[in-house]
Amino acid sequence: MMVLRSLFALSFLVSSSNAVDFCVEDLDANQGPAGYSCKKAETVTVHDFIFSLGATGNTSNLIKAAVTPAFSAQFPGINRLGISVARLDLAVGGRVPVHTHPGASEILIIQGTICAGFISSTNKVYFKSLNEGDANHAIAFPQGLMHFQINIGKSRALAFASFGSANPGIYTMDYALFANNLPTDILRETTFLDPDQFKKLKGVFGGTD
Amino acid sequence: MMVLRSLFALSFLVSSSNAVDFCVEDLDANQGPAGYSCKKAETVTVHDFIFSLGATGNTSNLIKAAVTPAFSAQFPGINRLGISVARLDLAVGGRVPVHTHPGASEILIIQGTICAGFISSTNKVYFKSLNEGDANHAIAFPQGLMHFQINIGKSRALAFASFGSANPGIYTMDYALFANNLPTDILRETTFLDPDQFKKLKGVFGGTD
Amino acid sequence: MMVLRSLFALSFLVSSSNAVDFCVEDLDANQGPAGYSCKKAETVTVHDFIFSLGATGNTSNLIKAAVTPAFSAQFPGINRLGISVARLDLAVGGRVPVHTHPGASEILIIQGTICAGFISSTNKVYFKSLNEGDANHAIAFPQGLMHFQINIGKSRALAFASFGSANPGIYTMDYALFANNLPTDILRETTFLDPDQFKKLKGVFGGTD
Amino acid sequence: MMVLRSLFALSFLVSSSNAVDFCVEDLDANQGPAGYSCKKAETVTVHDFIFSLGATGNTSNLIKAAVTPAFSAQFPGINRLGISVARLDLAVGGRVPVHTHPGASEILIIQGTICAGFISSTNKVYFKSLNEGDANHAIAFPQGLMHFQINIGKSRALAFASFGSANPGIYTMDYALFANNLPTDILRETTFLDPDQFKKLKGVFGGTD
Amino acid sequence: MMVLRSLFALSFLVSSSNAVDFCVEDLDANQGPAGYSCKKAETVTVHDFIFSLGATGNTSNLIKAAVTPAFSAQFPGINRLGISVARLDLAVGGRVPVHTHPGASEILIIQGTICAGFISSTNKVYFKSLNEGDANHAIAFPQGLMHFQINIGKSRALAFASFGSANPGIYTMDYALFANNLPTDILRETTFLDPDQFKKLKGVFGGTD
Amino acid sequence: MMVLRSLFALSFLVSSSNAVDFCVEDLDANQGPAGYSCKKAETVTVHDFIFSLGATGNTSNLIKAAVTPAFSAQFPGINRLGISVARLDLAVGGRVPVHTHPGASEILIIQGTICAGFISSTNKVYFKSLNEGDANHAIAFPQGLMHFQINIGKSRALAFASFGSANPGIYTMDYALFANNLPTDILRETTFLDPDQFKKLKGVFGGTD
Repeated sequence: MMVLRSLFALSFLVSSSNAVDFCVEDLDANQGPAGYSCKKAETVTVHDFIFSLGATGNTSNLIKAAVTPAFSAQFPGINRLGISVARLDLAVGGRVPVHTHPGASEILIIQGTICAGFISSTNKVYFKSLNEGDANHAIAFPQGLMHFQINIGKSRALAFASFGSANPGIYTMDYALFANNLPTDILRETTFLDPDQFKKLKGVFGGTD
Repeated sequence: MMVLRSLFALSFLVSSSNAVDFCVEDLDANQGPAGYSCKKAETVTVHDFIFSLGATGNTSNLIKAAVTPAFSAQFPGINRLGISVARLDLAVGGRVPVHTHPGASEILIIQGTICAGFISSTNKVYFKSLNEGDANHAIAFPQGLMHFQINIGKSRALAFASFGSANPGIYTMDYALFANNLPTDILRETTFLDPDQFKKLKGVFGGTD
Repeated sequence: MMVLRSLFALSFLVSSSNAVDFCVEDLDANQGPAGYSCKKAETVTVHDFIFSLGATGNTSNLIKAAVTPAFSAQFPGINRLGISVARLDLAVGGRVPVHTHPGASEILIIQGTICAGFISSTNKVYFKSLNEGDANHAIAFPQGLMHFQINIGKSRALAFASFGSANPGIYTMDYALFANNLPTDILRETTFLDPDQFKKLKGVFGGTD
Repeated sequence: MMVLRSLFALSFLVSSSNAVDFCVEDLDANQGPAGYSCKKAETVTVHDFIFSLGATGNTSNLIKAAVTPAFSAQFPGINRLGISVARLDLAVGGRVPVHTHPGASEILIIQGTICAGFISSTNKVYFKSLNEGDANHAIAFPQGLMHFQINIGKSRALAFASFGSANPGIYTMDYALFANNLPTDILRETTFLDPDQFKKLKGVFGGTD
Repeated sequence: MMVLRSLFALSFLVSSSNAVDFCVEDLDANQGPAGYSCKKAETVTVHDFIFSLGATGNTSNLIKAAVTPAFSAQFPGINRLGISVARLDLAVGGRVPVHTHPGASEILIIQGTICAGFISSTNKVYFKSLNEGDANHAIAFPQGLMHFQINIGKSRALAFASFGSANPGIYTMDYALFANNLPTDILRETTFLDPDQFKKLKGVFGGTD
Repeated sequence: MMVLRSLFALSFLVSSSNAVDFCVEDLDANQGPAGYSCKKAETVTVHDFIFSLGATGNTSNLIKAAVTPAFSAQFPGINRLGISVARLDLAVGGRVPVHTHPGASEILIIQGTICAGFISSTNKVYFKSLNEGDANHAIAFPQGLMHFQINIGKSRALAFASFGSANPGIYTMDYALFANNLPTDILRETTFLDPDQFKKLKGVFGGTD
């Protein structure tokens, strides 16, 4: 079989030394300008490409919801693959407040009754209540637009979100506005909200004046 | 409120005339060089962004499996969003034969026991059997690599695949080699398979000599 | 000189028939799936690449501000060049409310005293008042993050914004939430604002229940 | 075999209706905003993917050189594949004057002695004479940098260029400056060349005052 | 407020550990394969996103012009944001000689009378004199094409350039040809200029034989 | 000439510190998350951009073929230029078995008679025998599709392949399936091949059970 080695060796060399296939982040290494180093190919196993989203998220919180991500920070094998998923648990009355991601996302409802929607940059609202009988509906949210999900049913809801990035980010309006020390003067001028409103919400979300 | 109209009008104009947010394909229009035309913004509704994957696929076939895509050809609202999902039903003993996509993909197991894996371009094999107790595992398949899923359990399996493209394609080895009129001379020279082997498989997959 | 024609002709052919250099949108044509058609190269003149931002915007409005874009919808020559600029006029007390773009932006202050800033996706606030003495400061706003500009000085302010897209979009929180018919139930659940607050702001921004 | 049709049909539908694999330009169709339409998949043959570069270019011209492109305008099958090649014939003393492309290029010398090089944006010169004994040398030219090839040997030279674009463009300094009506005032101010120099070269390259 | 921490913590973790928002270059660190390291998020302040272009450039030079860049080498906060600006000062009679960038650019005239233009890859010239009365005109220069700006007025001119890259580069023909040791043989063959012409200009621009 | 130094110095600084032009990999350095470091600009010479493909590959092997790559692992100057080439030698009866690359490729036949083709994702076969009289034909292979080349002539064949990536990868079906320890159970289920067939080919390609 030695006659085969030249092409075989070539194939090995080209791929393994340049991470054509994948770059599993080595979270134990120092972080460099391009993120974490890739694990050496010989230490990568199938376990690097598997991630469990089986555990129900803890929804004992203000929003009665839990987002469990399988992004590259949690799931290093997804790094540079340009995709990721997350688990979304919504207790009765739970909701994910209006938020954005840089890219598009899509949820697939596994269980429960969810009202979901988004607002376009022409300020048009698109939303729909998807009932239990509509199980396994997918609903898409275009890139950069505020969107939300609410459990409007009488039992827990479960959905999975998918993204076109291994690190899609999540940017939630209430946290952005009320979970920090953004001065009330600026808030008033740039949101038109009343001072007692953001004073109250800074209290709720942990912001300070 | 008229004083507000200039910015509001601007915002509307900029977005709607240039499809910043989305481009829902109009499958009733003629197909042009860049695909189908976008539906006019005023005719787009939330229904364009919703797609049902609730129906169990018909697995009464050779592979005892069914892939139900929600790609842009089926789900025009996903067009240009750079993501998509598909439903995967596997009867007992069902499997998706080795296949590739141009980009990466990831499946999330909802039900059943699936053995899934891929082969790297250094010819290393990564695969794992995920048991019922491992419910809701995600497994990722890097771009361009042959991968497979087999139901090795005793009941139907259900999974959802997600992709980083609205039109991810599917390229299955057996169909590529045996479902067409690729001459047996070429097959022999470029696959090293025996003639009686591809004669048999051309019969199975519908190819001709 | 005929000997030169072959290379010259080649150069002409390759470029002009495939729009290597530019694609000036023909706003008089019908809009197709990839936007407007390009004007034929022989009808393009230097005027297609020039746009005046000399006129002071009308700031007699609620926000006492005016954004005058030179995006591809207004300035067809910028189409496909991947950049654009806009003029920002702020009367005394004027402001651009918190808004996002899909990509990054940067303003360059020409005149006046502006307080500008953004909020990161870790909810950290970055803002600064740039005084008259700091003329011609540039301030950058990363992609997808809420940012704002307020004229905190005693005279009109003028700035120019630049973008890494010919059609950068503008997505303003107040308009997204209050300039439409987003149901108050959903608003309450997903923004935590009080009903009387969004009732008031729907009045201000033209929304309905 | 009917049981196979569902996946087979799916595979066909997904791919063919959305040009996952290729988009052969239909040069007989009208040109739209995204270029020419794709030929219908059923009319595409292997001949669409084959192009002959066997004919020696006519080098009876001022530069004693001929560039024969196989770009998308000549070779519609290469459209959207992101690559292309061209044939370069250089008679004795022939040369391709300094020119740029938007992307990188690389030539592979098949025959003859060529001096080739480029100038970096830090104004450093990189060039080398590759003798006959060095047959089949590749030399790379980074994106956007002026580069040149000169036949410094005693016989015809042949090389093939490859590009990372199906329509890489070619932008030649002498033609850009002297093959048009660029006013001599502007030429003098922006090139520092002497008036009699560009008067002479406008004569050579067909420009007018 | 502890109930909120899970989503808040998630949001923080996902974003901060993967530089979703920005990557301010740490110019004090060693430069790696992907450029400088990002500054740690906790050390980034608003000052990293602010850059002054208020100082008039020194135009006491051959071209009577000064380009003051706010590119990532000078303004680390703009790194990876995909945009940048530069200040252009032109004394009376000053000019920026013909030059290119890999991407498109656009200048916005703040003061003075500027003649600006570019030459397409079909060798067509597009230029225009923009008078004082035309204040705040923007003029766009497509990617990779030679362009120039000349102050043809009777007073200093000021403009700001914007780019679709944080490090747009600048590639000036005279420097590329005459500010180095490019052999005169090669210059003659590939530019068609006369030897006494490039001897003179090598003297002007600091090149050697 | 000192007056010129400001723009000259600027140009130098901007380019050299940020690798606008090129990034020649330093294969002697440690490999980081973004690959190897770039060699310092002052140590880069023209030799970094030249690579010899003049040596005939050793075709004394099972496939009677040799692929000699000039990818970034072998030719560090091509790194980040987005293109590469490879030499293909085919002895009489030699062939490159069916294989894929993530991107498109194109071969240019220099000598001999080659039968080459590809299979689309709709399972349609495109192939052609190109005879000696058809010298210098280019044939293109779209991204991700299985393709092959066979020397069907009576003498050695030579071709050069070009790619739209500096590290295009090569993924060969036979090696992927038979040169590893992929269990025979999985092979049978996901390829439909007979056990004695893959037992035989595992022997040929060096795989184990």
